[in-house]
Amino acid sequence: MARIAHVSPLAPARFPTIPPVAGFRFATAEAGIRYRGRPDLLLIEAVSGTTVAGVLTRSSMPGHPVTWCREILPRGRARAVIVNAGNANVCRGEEGDRAVESEARAVAAALHCAPEEVLVASTGVIGERLPVERIVAAVPGLVEGLRPDGIEQAARAIMTTDTFPKGAVAHAAIDGVPVTIAGIAKGSGMIAPNLATMLAFLVTDARLPAAVLQPLLAAAAERSFNSTTVDGDTSTSDTLLLLASGRAHHHPVVDPADSRLAAFADALDAVCLDLALQVVRDGEGAQKLIEILVEGAVSDASAKRIGLTIANSPLVKTAIAGGDANWGRVVMAVGKAGEPVEPAALAVSFGGHAVAREGRAVPDLDEAPIAAHLAGREIALSVVVGRGPGRARVWTCDLTHGYIDINADYRS
Amino acid sequence: MARIAHVSPLAPARFPTIPPVAGFRFATAEAGIRYRGRPDLLLIEAVSGTTVAGVLTRSSMPGHPVTWCREILPRGRARAVIVNAGNANVCRGEEGDRAVESEARAVAAALHCAPEEVLVASTGVIGERLPVERIVAAVPGLVEGLRPDGIEQAARAIMTTDTFPKGAVAHAAIDGVPVTIAGIAKGSGMIAPNLATMLAFLVTDARLPAAVLQPLLAAAAERSFNSTTVDGDTSTSDTLLLLASGRAHHHPVVDPADSRLAAFADALDAVCLDLALQVVRDGEGAQKLIEILVEGAVSDASAKRIGLTIANSPLVKTAIAGGDANWGRVVMAVGKAGEPVEPAALAVSFGGHAVAREGRAVPDLDEAPIAAHLAGREIALSVVVGRGPGRARVWTCDLTHGYIDINADYRS
Repeated sequence: MARIAHVSPLAPARFPTIPPVAGFRFATAEAGIRYRGRPDLLLIEAVSGTTVAGVLTRSSMPGHPVTWCREILPRGRARAVIVNAGNANVCRGEEGDRAVESEARAVAAALHCAPEEVLVASTGVIGERLPVERIVAAVPGLVEGLRPDGIEQAARAIMTTDTFPKGAVAHAAIDGVPVTIAGIAKGSGMIAPNLATMLAFLVTDARLPAAVLQPLLAAAAERSFNSTTVDGDTSTSDTLLLLASGRAHHHPVVDPADSRLAAFADALDAVCLDLALQVVRDGEGAQKLIEILVEGAVSDASAKRIGLTIANSPLVKTAIAGGDANWGRVVMAVGKAGEPVEPAALAVSFGGHAVAREGRAVPDLDEAPIAAHLAGREIALSVVVGRGPGRARVWTCDLTHGYIDINADYRS
Repeated sequence: MARIAHVSPLAPARFPTIPPVAGFRFATAEAGIRYRGRPDLLLIEAVSGTTVAGVLTRSSMPGHPVTWCREILPRGRARAVIVNAGNANVCRGEEGDRAVESEARAVAAALHCAPEEVLVASTGVIGERLPVERIVAAVPGLVEGLRPDGIEQAARAIMTTDTFPKGAVAHAAIDGVPVTIAGIAKGSGMIAPNLATMLAFLVTDARLPAAVLQPLLAAAAERSFNSTTVDGDTSTSDTLLLLASGRAHHHPVVDPADSRLAAFADALDAVCLDLALQVVRDGEGAQKLIEILVEGAVSDASAKRIGLTIANSPLVKTAIAGGDANWGRVVMAVGKAGEPVEPAALAVSFGGHAVAREGRAVPDLDEAPIAAHLAGREIALSVVVGRGPGRARVWTCDLTHGYIDINADYRS
């Protein structure tokens, strides 16, 4: 049983106010899959005609629900998403695949749609049998309880070691018609690019074909979930879905590069980044949110690889946990990234205060303002690695005793 | 000031008995570079005619001593190695390069050799100015104090966060003539392949040209230092050197593949692996030594990448710290390695007790013997990832509160 620890000190003050999004309803239930006395099952229902896009884990050991989603996502249509917390349904052989199919069939029967219109996601312990009969038995009650304003409860039902529910919303206009994008996410450990969260579900009333949604979602994921890391560990179950009900009455847009989609793409970016940063803020044991800006690399991709190497370095993360402006560890991490760099151009700053410049320590450094910055909750680390045009921004959290506490005894 | 913590519970009972190796003398001094009241400077002197091979960090931000060694190593000749602890002399621009040259020149003058016959290594804090004048001033005293049996003191002088001095010795015969290989190492954090230690110095009385030493050393490093990891972080200063005095009177051997070198190569492997495992045993905060065997991969190299991904996973390392046979996290780590695997062939065992087989959990598992194994100090994790011929063995330690204690406040 995962300990639900104190709420992260980096948590937002409250769950955001998210209005209903036309075409979607939510329901949760206590299926007792692993947890007791809390909802652990979520059903999202979408109206007929809803399109869908998804980004799934690149793990070579994906969970059974991921395999199912990968198979049905190319159809581009969805009527429902069913999600459980507490058991990830991974490494169960044919039994695991059959469990997913049972879930999809039960939901399809209750909603009068095809099983291939039901996406499935699971999060929790790997390798144990999913008590799918409890999920199937809960489906009729879930369908009865569907309501358009249930999104905060939905966010709570998918939590595992999360200390707070994660939601975000943004508004945009397509061709002058207002649309909304709302999303929920869960995740706090086993968090690394591809994806930097275990589960995230976004809904919008925009009217867009799957062929438009998919590239927009992939691009937004790259700048958000795939630019964050907690511990460098990638889940078997990472799933990001975007469902579009088409209830907004704008003109159809069929080209993802259409300029009428710019505001929608920005809003999608904003929701993804908001959720991804909430996941980092809930990083297991996190006391500080760290933003790392890398500039001067040979390309943006190279800058991102350097940034993630810094972000995943236990030595950098523990130094920041200790409030220590140990830029030597940043140098170490830059060096181990294996990317082209110019040592003589290296610069490092914390909170805008330079500690190294042109490849060496700043002489007679006044450490007081840096120490003050590092004592805060939000840390800005900026690194110049050369004189190239590449830049990237990534996010992580510090590595503290809390991470050890949570992870040295999660399963039992 | 680094805290010299309690000695690691995984430390060997004592420093090994290492006889003098013909052609080498050692001396240490208290130069007060960073530490007080302990030796922090080491001089190894080698007789004229000594050959040398080396393996250096692949970091793209190497320390100034590494740059120097990389420049002079191709000459294949060495008369001395000078090493300091407490300051790594990294990222100091031209000042850092000049400091290295000052060290080499001071030693060369005292030993009547060329500066290019003096190898230099430094370990400790990155980015601060090396007080090279203290090293230069200590050289005459060091030369006076040279003695053939000073190797244990040598091992102590290069320690930083190490909790015990590391030494190893092995014997072999070349063409019927006995030879000895002795070595010392230091390192306990910032430990990851290439190299898996910060500094290691080996001496032998064998009579072998540098062109023979180099491939043998590179191969031995690949199976030892480059098969171990503590935290996935690669130092700027990793330096492994092998010096051969040629005082053993065997016939010259000029082909590294000559069968007369088989026993010597085995002994070199043994010394490297002994030292590398001592470094892991002294991993910051380590309570358990973990050996990971990966089999069934498409190649040995693929198996090693999977093994190191498992070995570097914070979630695997914390699970083992907590005595939890959480094989789901092993599955996660296998999946994130990005190597070809066959999920249906996956098998995982701890201490020889299978927890998963043919891609799924072992039913009705008796966890008692596994729990007993995981309660011990030496953990054996075996993973089958497919049906290929590739296999590799790697080593790491667990991730505990001790790592956070040491690293959240190292520099200050």
